Amino acid sequence: MRMYDVILHKRDGLELTDEEIRFFIQGYVNGSIPDYQASAFTMAVFFNGMSDREIGTLTEAIATSGDTVDLSLFGDLSCDKHSTGGVGDKTSLIVSPTVASLGGFFAKMSGRGLGHTGGTVDKLESIPGYRIQLSPDEFLSAVTKTGVAVIGQSGNLTPADKKLYALRDVTATVDSIPLITSSIMGKKLAAGSKNIVLDVKVGSGAFMKTLEGAKELAEKMVTIGKMHGRRIAALLTDMDEPLGTNVGNSLEVIEAVRVLRGEVKNDLLEVSVALSAELIRMLHGIPEKEAEARVREAIESGRAYETFRKWISEQGGDLRAIDDFSLLPGASVAYKVQAPSDGCIASMNASEIGMAAMILGAGRASKEDAIDYGAGIVLEKKTGDFVRQGETVAILYTNDETKIPDAEKRFLGALTFSMEPPVKKPLIYEIIR
Amino acid sequence: MRMYDVILHKRDGLELTDEEIRFFIQGYVNGSIPDYQASAFTMAVFFNGMSDREIGTLTEAIATSGDTVDLSLFGDLSCDKHSTGGVGDKTSLIVSPTVASLGGFFAKMSGRGLGHTGGTVDKLESIPGYRIQLSPDEFLSAVTKTGVAVIGQSGNLTPADKKLYALRDVTATVDSIPLITSSIMGKKLAAGSKNIVLDVKVGSGAFMKTLEGAKELAEKMVTIGKMHGRRIAALLTDMDEPLGTNVGNSLEVIEAVRVLRGEVKNDLLEVSVALSAELIRMLHGIPEKEAEARVREAIESGRAYETFRKWISEQGGDLRAIDDFSLLPGASVAYKVQAPSDGCIASMNASEIGMAAMILGAGRASKEDAIDYGAGIVLEKKTGDFVRQGETVAILYTNDETKIPDAEKRFLGALTFSMEPPVKKPLIYEIIR
Repeated sequence: MRMYDVILHKRDGLELTDEEIRFFIQGYVNGSIPDYQASAFTMAVFFNGMSDREIGTLTEAIATSGDTVDLSLFGDLSCDKHSTGGVGDKTSLIVSPTVASLGGFFAKMSGRGLGHTGGTVDKLESIPGYRIQLSPDEFLSAVTKTGVAVIGQSGNLTPADKKLYALRDVTATVDSIPLITSSIMGKKLAAGSKNIVLDVKVGSGAFMKTLEGAKELAEKMVTIGKMHGRRIAALLTDMDEPLGTNVGNSLEVIEAVRVLRGEVKNDLLEVSVALSAELIRMLHGIPEKEAEARVREAIESGRAYETFRKWISEQGGDLRAIDDFSLLPGASVAYKVQAPSDGCIASMNASEIGMAAMILGAGRASKEDAIDYGAGIVLEKKTGDFVRQGETVAILYTNDETKIPDAEKRFLGALTFSMEPPVKKPLIYEIIR
Repeated sequence: MRMYDVILHKRDGLELTDEEIRFFIQGYVNGSIPDYQASAFTMAVFFNGMSDREIGTLTEAIATSGDTVDLSLFGDLSCDKHSTGGVGDKTSLIVSPTVASLGGFFAKMSGRGLGHTGGTVDKLESIPGYRIQLSPDEFLSAVTKTGVAVIGQSGNLTPADKKLYALRDVTATVDSIPLITSSIMGKKLAAGSKNIVLDVKVGSGAFMKTLEGAKELAEKMVTIGKMHGRRIAALLTDMDEPLGTNVGNSLEVIEAVRVLRGEVKNDLLEVSVALSAELIRMLHGIPEKEAEARVREAIESGRAYETFRKWISEQGGDLRAIDDFSLLPGASVAYKVQAPSDGCIASMNASEIGMAAMILGAGRASKEDAIDYGAGIVLEKKTGDFVRQGETVAILYTNDETKIPDAEKRFLGALTFSMEPPVKKPLIYEIIR
């Protein structure tokens, strides 16, 4: 078999055989197929797409290209959650202890991530003492004990995805549904959980800007997950403005804790409840409404928060910083952004607000950048709120005050105002099962 | 400027700016743009095409990516001829001295070529003593003296095309009209001639299998040539069966000499006359019919053959081998292929006959292979001829008799027979000016 022919077949719109797809992934990982053939191939996939069978085989080849995690210890109760990424998205910090408090086992590996803020592990690292590196034994033992552990990616999981994603990123072949599906689902299959809930974000702060695109991606991922014997569902949720009020690493931990304590009831709570309920429905085979009731009860009773504390403590995190947020990384500067005029906030471009947070130090532009864990933004107002000129719209936090002018400019550029309140959009558009 | 954006723009169907195209070619040649971005780009061009302006800019960027040949010495009389390649195509050996005998100056650089037989320089090297390497001064002086010189490619002409073609060849992006056009025309512009005739082959032995594809390519090349101030025309000629009767290196020299001597009047003569007449028409600004009459007169009078002899002699070729073909490289084996049954030859797949010649030793499968200059095939019958069972259809020549069974099988597989003669196809479909 020659890679040339695999490229040619895809270029000419043929459906590839399983052998051709496996030949590509194996050869690309072992180095016998060069980058320049892989990039021509991914561009041909961008134009000609892939059938469900092709995506399924590609996903499996990616999943088995390196180590895989064995969670058979937890039977059918292992759970995973994946978000396609958004601004202020700290649902993992809420969903995992909530589901664990209701009988699920969350053995989650999470990436660091580039962009506006860090990934879930960066957020967790803002808690003093929290260890994101556990040995495989420590990891499984922590999950067994508290029902949840979240660590950084370790070992040689899905090397095919790492290599292919890095290539797609520089050859303009990231936004292809078959390639996104196989990348995400390849990692999910390798991570070993039986039950998977996907949070597919839609809107200005999401990778998918349109509902149609997000729905197509969600449907493909669910199809591929089922094809490989997983229980799986995808929620299409809004990311046209940031989720919740806090953007930044320790700021997001604070907001998640407040939701778990029942102190805050907002969009973040609602999305977290919906994601958790979906997993509980799968886990226990109960109706949707009942699953949602159990989830709300777990939060309101404090059981979910109790599980959160056990989890953080088990991984070395200092609970005093959860009890007293002033012990979390803070910011030397807190700058109030004032409304430029009277009006109603018509939109808050989530991606631009993410960029403002990154300017303040909350995220990384490149892998080598250090994160300012205390930096970020707290929104005092959100879309649909009326403001008076001079009223505080948000507070910018940073340890480098020279960043304020740029960040403020970027933040204000993300807002539009109108005299009429905007049409209210749903928070959760649809659930794909 | 980033190559990522250039790929993205082409992928999304935008028209690239001149700056983007030049940035790509310059960066690819100097190594700052890696192969994997170039191959993603060429695949995007395969799908989304290019406008005439884009192709014109790409062609110019390729043409000026390395050395260029200065033929200003010959004013408006410099000539070039290019064939898209076919089996038994030895027209360059006839056209160049014919046009030179009528006032044109042919300063031709030619490649070696992979495939069924060698390129023009390989054919010329079968003449004892012929030097394909001349210094730039010797080259121009030879052209000045005899009107024609043909040498191997030297210097650093169109490095962008060399690098890009090698990449396209392994990434299934060769057959893209904009990329073929810019590759061929980039080389033609760098080669410096004012007058250019293109022989675009159509049929089973051609790169372009259909008349539509060949016409589209021909029109693009003519458009781009004119855009850059050249006099240019393209002939669409048949390559559904081999041109002439001889396939192989010294065998093709022999047939060309016989045509120049007026001993053979066949399809090879007619295509050579048409190509030559097109150049004479451009050179002297005379009507088509008059140009054709001058060309036929040059051949019939022996003037074209006289120029051929002067050219070969000037480049060190031994004219005794032209006078006595037994002094050219020969073959120890001459094997007669017999007709398997009575019937009319309905078709002779040119590409398959080329493969049979390659098996006999006439061509190279890879750059390192040596050529058997005496090997090849002489067709005793061509499409439309009636044969009786056992009658000789062709003679296979080789110096390695173990190759005969494979070559014969391949040759016979290239033929189809019928009871009725096939519909006669035109030799020259159209001239694009």
